[in-house]
Amino acid sequence: MSHSLLILSRHANDYRRLIDAARLPDLRVTSSSDAAASAGECDLAFGEPSLLAHALPRLTALRWAQATWAGVEPLLNPSLRRDYVLTNARGVFGALMSEYVFAYLLAHERLLLKKYASQQAGRWDPTPPGSLRGKLIGLIGVGSIGAALARTAKHFGMRVHGYTRASETCADVDVYFHGDQRLAFAADLDYLVTVAPNTAGTRHLVDAALLAALPSRAVFVNPGRGSVVDEAALAAALREGRLAGAVLDVFQTEPLPSDHELWRAPNVLITSHTAAQSHPEDIAPVFVENYLRLVGGEPLKYQVDFERGY
Amino acid sequence: MSHSLLILSRHANDYRRLIDAARLPDLRVTSSSDAAASAGECDLAFGEPSLLAHALPRLTALRWAQATWAGVEPLLNPSLRRDYVLTNARGVFGALMSEYVFAYLLAHERLLLKKYASQQAGRWDPTPPGSLRGKLIGLIGVGSIGAALARTAKHFGMRVHGYTRASETCADVDVYFHGDQRLAFAADLDYLVTVAPNTAGTRHLVDAALLAALPSRAVFVNPGRGSVVDEAALAAALREGRLAGAVLDVFQTEPLPSDHELWRAPNVLITSHTAAQSHPEDIAPVFVENYLRLVGGEPLKYQVDFERGY
Repeated sequence: MSHSLLILSRHANDYRRLIDAARLPDLRVTSSSDAAASAGECDLAFGEPSLLAHALPRLTALRWAQATWAGVEPLLNPSLRRDYVLTNARGVFGALMSEYVFAYLLAHERLLLKKYASQQAGRWDPTPPGSLRGKLIGLIGVGSIGAALARTAKHFGMRVHGYTRASETCADVDVYFHGDQRLAFAADLDYLVTVAPNTAGTRHLVDAALLAALPSRAVFVNPGRGSVVDEAALAAALREGRLAGAVLDVFQTEPLPSDHELWRAPNVLITSHTAAQSHPEDIAPVFVENYLRLVGGEPLKYQVDFERGY
Repeated sequence: MSHSLLILSRHANDYRRLIDAARLPDLRVTSSSDAAASAGECDLAFGEPSLLAHALPRLTALRWAQATWAGVEPLLNPSLRRDYVLTNARGVFGALMSEYVFAYLLAHERLLLKKYASQQAGRWDPTPPGSLRGKLIGLIGVGSIGAALARTAKHFGMRVHGYTRASETCADVDVYFHGDQRLAFAADLDYLVTVAPNTAGTRHLVDAALLAALPSRAVFVNPGRGSVVDEAALAAALREGRLAGAVLDVFQTEPLPSDHELWRAPNVLITSHTAAQSHPEDIAPVFVENYLRLVGGEPLKYQVDFERGY
């Protein structure tokens, strides 16, 4: 049986080149430039969830869609079809997320910005830095990204707590918390990092109550989803010095509006949704592996549960 | 046989408390406040090499000295006695050095200061960051500190080259270089990190020729010893844009004089000799372990070869 793939991506040319190079059997590839004509013939689609969601009504023959992102919110809209297999990109963002999160954790411990300010003033500054060793990191969400963060935390000698819906699969998490243990989870953290997907269950998990439960020495890092945070409560906690700092990559509204209070809240660092970007060289192999599973009759990896949302 | 220990340290009280708590057999401890009277009776000494060097003429019964630092230059002065066993502190700085070096490598890749400047200007800045994955780090010196850096580099998916006098003992180093292979070692590095001790053989290893051999994208990090670098050549390479940056913790003269050109050279970050400080809680166990070896008749760990200098 032969397959017909539609690529819908800002990086369609890169993906087409990478997929052509893989010389996959029985596959005809159409990329977005000529998509309008042939969408109805394609049984496979590969691309950004926002573009896939837009094309979904025309993809009448669709059996499988591979997303280039980890988050697939645009395809979870209840008005959209769910009569196809949706797989997302997993296993490729963990390393990048780890670099992002630990860049900022280490910068915090090593007083990087303070040392830089001293240097700008021409001042030798022997203030002793801190260390990650023995510090406690709490992860909200321990899927493949959380597991990568936990592994790096262990590399640096940290203790690791995890807050998940139910899973307890990561050996690098020392203690798991679930459900109504949210405030106990927060109570003694040095760092709180959210990498949970955007679902009804994770909306505003980081709210005034959770922020009040954190020690004032804690730093909050969010490279996950803006919807997980009550931004007004976060800004208030920072203004009132109830939190040592926040490193924010994602927001309810992006780009973050220029008059948003988080731009000017004390001890905030804003990184403009760049924590872990999809690189075609990393994502194309996810499609290639899954395509080979499809033609081999094996179950696809990274299938999304439309109800659960990830 | 009983032993008499003289502690000579800025942290003498902490060390005394930690050593007392270890309840070592047959040990009488004298700390610096009452040192003048009893120095001649002490067969053991423990402390900062600078203070030990100063006291050495009075320590007429000395058999073993344990340094609280990794670098023991003050005790290598040829005018000083060498008729005792000198051990240094090893195995305790690797983790701290790793936090220091990777704080700055990750900050460089993640454009931390650029993102911070954008935020100060209220500007959403989606500039894509880089990644350590696949990048090449070169280590000058691969003892216990270099090995810790190599392990963290591998954790982040980097390639690792090492330049050593002769040793090839670290499995995390992909390729070793020695002797006159110095410029070949430098040729393709993304990061050059020096953690070599201060010896005659390492003086100005990072000179104009080596800096010229580095790619212009390279960043130089020196948490080791200032003597390893020709500072005038480094400042020139930075001024002329032949190097992407330098992160400097140590200098020929410390504190770095306020009129020194490195304060104002472009793309320099200065951290004022704070990369890996001696913490009594980490160093006291090195003394305790070696003392138990001494009374047990076992060879001491971390013995310094006075000729080699480390």
